[in-house]
Amino acid sequence: MLKNLYDTDCVTWSPQGKLFQVDYAMEAVKLGSICLGLRSDENVVLCSLKRSQQDFATFQDKIFKVDSRLGMAMSGLTADARLLCKYLRNECLSHKYTYNSPHPVQRLVQKVSEKSQHKTQSYGKRPYGVGLLVAGYDQAGPHLYETCPDGNHYEYVAHSIGARSQSARTYLENNAHLFSGCALDTLLLHALKALKSAVQEEKEYFYSLYF
Amino acid sequence: MLKNLYDTDCVTWSPQGKLFQVDYAMEAVKLGSICLGLRSDENVVLCSLKRSQQDFATFQDKIFKVDSRLGMAMSGLTADARLLCKYLRNECLSHKYTYNSPHPVQRLVQKVSEKSQHKTQSYGKRPYGVGLLVAGYDQAGPHLYETCPDGNHYEYVAHSIGARSQSARTYLENNAHLFSGCALDTLLLHALKALKSAVQEEKEYFYSLYF
Amino acid sequence: MLKNLYDTDCVTWSPQGKLFQVDYAMEAVKLGSICLGLRSDENVVLCSLKRSQQDFATFQDKIFKVDSRLGMAMSGLTADARLLCKYLRNECLSHKYTYNSPHPVQRLVQKVSEKSQHKTQSYGKRPYGVGLLVAGYDQAGPHLYETCPDGNHYEYVAHSIGARSQSARTYLENNAHLFSGCALDTLLLHALKALKSAVQEEKEYFYSLYF
Amino acid sequence: MLKNLYDTDCVTWSPQGKLFQVDYAMEAVKLGSICLGLRSDENVVLCSLKRSQQDFATFQDKIFKVDSRLGMAMSGLTADARLLCKYLRNECLSHKYTYNSPHPVQRLVQKVSEKSQHKTQSYGKRPYGVGLLVAGYDQAGPHLYETCPDGNHYEYVAHSIGARSQSARTYLENNAHLFSGCALDTLLLHALKALKSAVQEEKEYFYSLYF
Amino acid sequence: MLKNLYDTDCVTWSPQGKLFQVDYAMEAVKLGSICLGLRSDENVVLCSLKRSQQDFATFQDKIFKVDSRLGMAMSGLTADARLLCKYLRNECLSHKYTYNSPHPVQRLVQKVSEKSQHKTQSYGKRPYGVGLLVAGYDQAGPHLYETCPDGNHYEYVAHSIGARSQSARTYLENNAHLFSGCALDTLLLHALKALKSAVQEEKEYFYSLYF
Amino acid sequence: MLKNLYDTDCVTWSPQGKLFQVDYAMEAVKLGSICLGLRSDENVVLCSLKRSQQDFATFQDKIFKVDSRLGMAMSGLTADARLLCKYLRNECLSHKYTYNSPHPVQRLVQKVSEKSQHKTQSYGKRPYGVGLLVAGYDQAGPHLYETCPDGNHYEYVAHSIGARSQSARTYLENNAHLFSGCALDTLLLHALKALKSAVQEEKEYFYSLYF
Amino acid sequence: MLKNLYDTDCVTWSPQGKLFQVDYAMEAVKLGSICLGLRSDENVVLCSLKRSQQDFATFQDKIFKVDSRLGMAMSGLTADARLLCKYLRNECLSHKYTYNSPHPVQRLVQKVSEKSQHKTQSYGKRPYGVGLLVAGYDQAGPHLYETCPDGNHYEYVAHSIGARSQSARTYLENNAHLFSGCALDTLLLHALKALKSAVQEEKEYFYSLYF
Repeated sequence: MLKNLYDTDCVTWSPQGKLFQVDYAMEAVKLGSICLGLRSDENVVLCSLKRSQQDFATFQDKIFKVDSRLGMAMSGLTADARLLCKYLRNECLSHKYTYNSPHPVQRLVQKVSEKSQHKTQSYGKRPYGVGLLVAGYDQAGPHLYETCPDGNHYEYVAHSIGARSQSARTYLENNAHLFSGCALDTLLLHALKALKSAVQEEKEYFYSLYF
Repeated sequence: MLKNLYDTDCVTWSPQGKLFQVDYAMEAVKLGSICLGLRSDENVVLCSLKRSQQDFATFQDKIFKVDSRLGMAMSGLTADARLLCKYLRNECLSHKYTYNSPHPVQRLVQKVSEKSQHKTQSYGKRPYGVGLLVAGYDQAGPHLYETCPDGNHYEYVAHSIGARSQSARTYLENNAHLFSGCALDTLLLHALKALKSAVQEEKEYFYSLYF
Repeated sequence: MLKNLYDTDCVTWSPQGKLFQVDYAMEAVKLGSICLGLRSDENVVLCSLKRSQQDFATFQDKIFKVDSRLGMAMSGLTADARLLCKYLRNECLSHKYTYNSPHPVQRLVQKVSEKSQHKTQSYGKRPYGVGLLVAGYDQAGPHLYETCPDGNHYEYVAHSIGARSQSARTYLENNAHLFSGCALDTLLLHALKALKSAVQEEKEYFYSLYF
Repeated sequence: MLKNLYDTDCVTWSPQGKLFQVDYAMEAVKLGSICLGLRSDENVVLCSLKRSQQDFATFQDKIFKVDSRLGMAMSGLTADARLLCKYLRNECLSHKYTYNSPHPVQRLVQKVSEKSQHKTQSYGKRPYGVGLLVAGYDQAGPHLYETCPDGNHYEYVAHSIGARSQSARTYLENNAHLFSGCALDTLLLHALKALKSAVQEEKEYFYSLYF
Repeated sequence: MLKNLYDTDCVTWSPQGKLFQVDYAMEAVKLGSICLGLRSDENVVLCSLKRSQQDFATFQDKIFKVDSRLGMAMSGLTADARLLCKYLRNECLSHKYTYNSPHPVQRLVQKVSEKSQHKTQSYGKRPYGVGLLVAGYDQAGPHLYETCPDGNHYEYVAHSIGARSQSARTYLENNAHLFSGCALDTLLLHALKALKSAVQEEKEYFYSLYF
Repeated sequence: MLKNLYDTDCVTWSPQGKLFQVDYAMEAVKLGSICLGLRSDENVVLCSLKRSQQDFATFQDKIFKVDSRLGMAMSGLTADARLLCKYLRNECLSHKYTYNSPHPVQRLVQKVSEKSQHKTQSYGKRPYGVGLLVAGYDQAGPHLYETCPDGNHYEYVAHSIGARSQSARTYLENNAHLFSGCALDTLLLHALKALKSAVQEEKEYFYSLYF
Repeated sequence: MLKNLYDTDCVTWSPQGKLFQVDYAMEAVKLGSICLGLRSDENVVLCSLKRSQQDFATFQDKIFKVDSRLGMAMSGLTADARLLCKYLRNECLSHKYTYNSPHPVQRLVQKVSEKSQHKTQSYGKRPYGVGLLVAGYDQAGPHLYETCPDGNHYEYVAHSIGARSQSARTYLENNAHLFSGCALDTLLLHALKALKSAVQEEKEYFYSLYF
């Protein structure tokens, strides 16, 4: 009950040194449908479920192409993801225009993190309710990053976020040692298998790939 | 009871990772009178009930013409819909003025979504209380989109929103396989039948069409 | 009791998708003294009660002349009505100055609606507490509009708002079929009869007319 | 008890369509000491009690001269009245400077009303706690207006506001038919008699006059 | 208990038409140490207690010289008084610079009142917690004014504010008839006697004079 | 319990005319470690405890040099003190740059007081949680001032603030009569003795001196 | 229970003179993983645990290089640390650009403290939830500073912050007398031993060094 005193505002610390609103925004990510990514030494693959509101609706995209060699998958609030995607696209474009070279992936992820951190320290704003898996390819090879509503980002060999992502993660962990030398189609196979381990009753998969 | 602690403000996350204010705004859409849309390969039709405050009042428009080949039907707060309609008209005009071509439908719908998302992340604002069915025709043929107060949009072959829209939706789902090759008048007939299935006691229909 | 959690702020949705503050502002209109309007094919008439604070006070105007061929009657907070009237006058003047033609009536009513809608979506403001009957004459002939605190407007053949307006409305509904071809003085007679049906004990009427 | 939910903020409507904060500000007027005004066809007179904090203090002015032919009496918060008086003086001066003619009385009263209305529609402000009797003389002859905290104004032949103003009002009502042709001194006599009827135990009167 | 609903904010009226926060600020004046002022036809004297925090501290000034012929004594929050004193000094200087004449005393007092009134009508500010006795000499002779946190000011022949000021006031009232023709030293004697009547146990007096 | 209604906000007066938040900020001063100052006719000495977080940490400064002949000791929040110290240094520098002379001590102290007062009258700010002892030397000789969170300042011959400062104050009071003619080293000795009387168990002293 | 009244806002003092929100932010530092630093006369070493979200994720940096001879380790919210790190890097760059010399370490630490203090005195912001160990080398040799959310900073010979940092601190205290003359590799050994004393079950260490 006492917890409730500290959890309606992202600028209020709890006595234990927690920001509950940020934790709750992390929960929103877990409510979204699953998406996952994995990379070999040469390729990186993003994969998400293709879901639709209704039978005769078109499918809702959960994977967005950001740049020619950069993409993101999302879990959580789609509207927030679109906003961040638009931000990423603008950053890429303005980088290309200024330096005539693709935006380094890590820098881009850092910019999303800074934007997210800002939302956790201002009254009257709310943390983003979306987690991203950002996959890209630059001079250092393929990358797979996760960004969180709390402003953190992590680099992964393989990762999965969203509802029921634990079983996909288990699959990925068990097979992570196999990925590094994989060809693209084997990598895709792993992605689909991991996705399938999380959702047995659904019938359709969607994948999108970057390398 | 605990729910109430998180649901008066659209910048407060619930512990489960929900934004209740956004959900409540979605309810406002369900309270509005029904409207529906469906499309064939060549045509797209919007259809809504013609209702009046009183017997001798003129009818209140629920369908707005946005551009020569673009229209929208609404369910929820009419005043919010007018505001969004005005915004759409301005965007179309400024696009026409700048590029001398009609505004692509999807881009326009994205702009409404961005505007809606913004209202869900700022203290002292409220999410829009209106859902739109946007119908338009561009180089890619006819389109039917739905926009929601939470900043999402979906593309449909046929869709219905507002009070008692479920029965119309059932009719549309059952007949969705017939629409693609329909001529315009058959499509209109389907629209009126779907509308009728939702409202039996009302006596007057209103339809408007775009192709 | 739960209702009270959502009704002190016009940017808070109730779980049922209602904005209670807007509904309450609609109640303020019902507390004002009655006014009504009706139109034939050629004329439009506004009519309100002449009331005074005290016996030896001058009468308080409830009908305002906006432009040479445009007027409004009000029910609710007089101070809010004056503010809107001033706004309408300014719009008319600036339109006349810019285009050298009278402001189209519907456009003017839409501007009031937009202004009203804006007050329902910003924290720290309140919806206007006044309903207007706007009567005007332009190229399309005479018009009678109602504007509401929630940002809606409706066109009517005949309408009445304010306290005990129901009985006037009943009279108007019963006789609505007679109005279209009426001469101005017959129309005035109908207006006075409708007003009388609502207030039997009051002794004085005030009318004002536009055509 | 429920009333208390809606009465601490002037931008919150009660479910009955009332703004309680505005009503409470009206109460502040009734707590002030009495002042009254009356007019004949040629003259207008303001009259208020001369009261002092202590025996050896100078008397506190409740009547302010605004312009050469314009004055105001007040009831309620003196500090608010001073502020409004200063505003009126500035308006008169700037009108005189711009048009080289005295400010029409009604327009001036309208400006006070607009200023008062504004305070009833913004969060973080409070309605003025003062009622004014504005007496002035312009081309249309003498005028007597009352302005209220809610942004309304009324024109009167004779009126009285403040604590125990009812008995003065009774006197004025009973004798209102005599005022129109009165000479200035008879008018003053009526004013003093009306004031006396309200306060029997006080010993000193103050009057100020304009014509 | 109900009172508490209206008394934490200076922009909230109580149902009785009171601003409690302003009243509470008036209480702060009564908590300050006593100061008093009195004037004859030629002179005006301010007098306050010399108190110190500790034995070996210097005495804290409660009387401030504002201009060559203008001073003020204070009761309440010293920090607020300093702020107002600084404001008065600036006003005097700028007046002298602009008009090459001393600032009229009453105008100066009015400016303090306006500044105080402003603090009673804005959310997020608080009324000043200090009462001033302003003594000055201009073309109209000596003046003694009191300014209050509520934005009022009064002129006095003799007045006393602060803790236990009632007994000093009793002395001053009883002897007020003697002051008008007094020489300066007799006036000082009266001031000291009045002060002494309020504080018997204190041993040191401080006086400051203006004429 | 009722007290709690008025003590979370520095712009809310209690019914007794108190600003509790300011009082609470005064408490923060009492929680800081002790510092003291004393002056003779020629010298002024500041003295504070040298404390460290841990055994192998460097000592935290509680005495700051502001200008060549000006220093301050603090008790309370160190971070607030640093901020004020930086402000003082800037003021001294800009005074020196403008007038080519050291900043008069009292004026400087007044500036701190004004800054502190400002924090007690604005919503959304908090009073500083630090008390300063400002020691300086100017044309009028050595000075020792105390500034408080409430915006007051006092001049002292000798003073001590912070936790357990009462016993140091007792020592200083008992020996205050000896200070005026003291040489600097005797003065230092008194300072150390006073400090020792307050803290018996601590083993290290720190002193800093100005003259 | 009463405590809760004062601890949701960093601009509210508790009656004991505490700012609880600042204390709670200090708790956030204790929740972070451990990091430590120590210095000899010639070298300074920072050391933190290498932890990863998952087995196949890359390690998350807790030590950031700021400048060629300046680095920082962090404990608490990583996102806040990144923000401060970026700030430090910018300050260093702009100093280098302006003065063509490295930024003095202490000045840099002071700037972080000022930034932190600012967050403790403004409504609608929150104190940073991160503690930093800043290690650097300038003309005065190697330095090790700690900055806290409350705006304080301390210089240390050796220090450790974060979860279970007490045992590391014990090791450092016991061996602090050995550090001053240490060679770099002995210093590193001490750092690793101290780290190991805090975490026995973890298997991997990460260190980074500056001199």
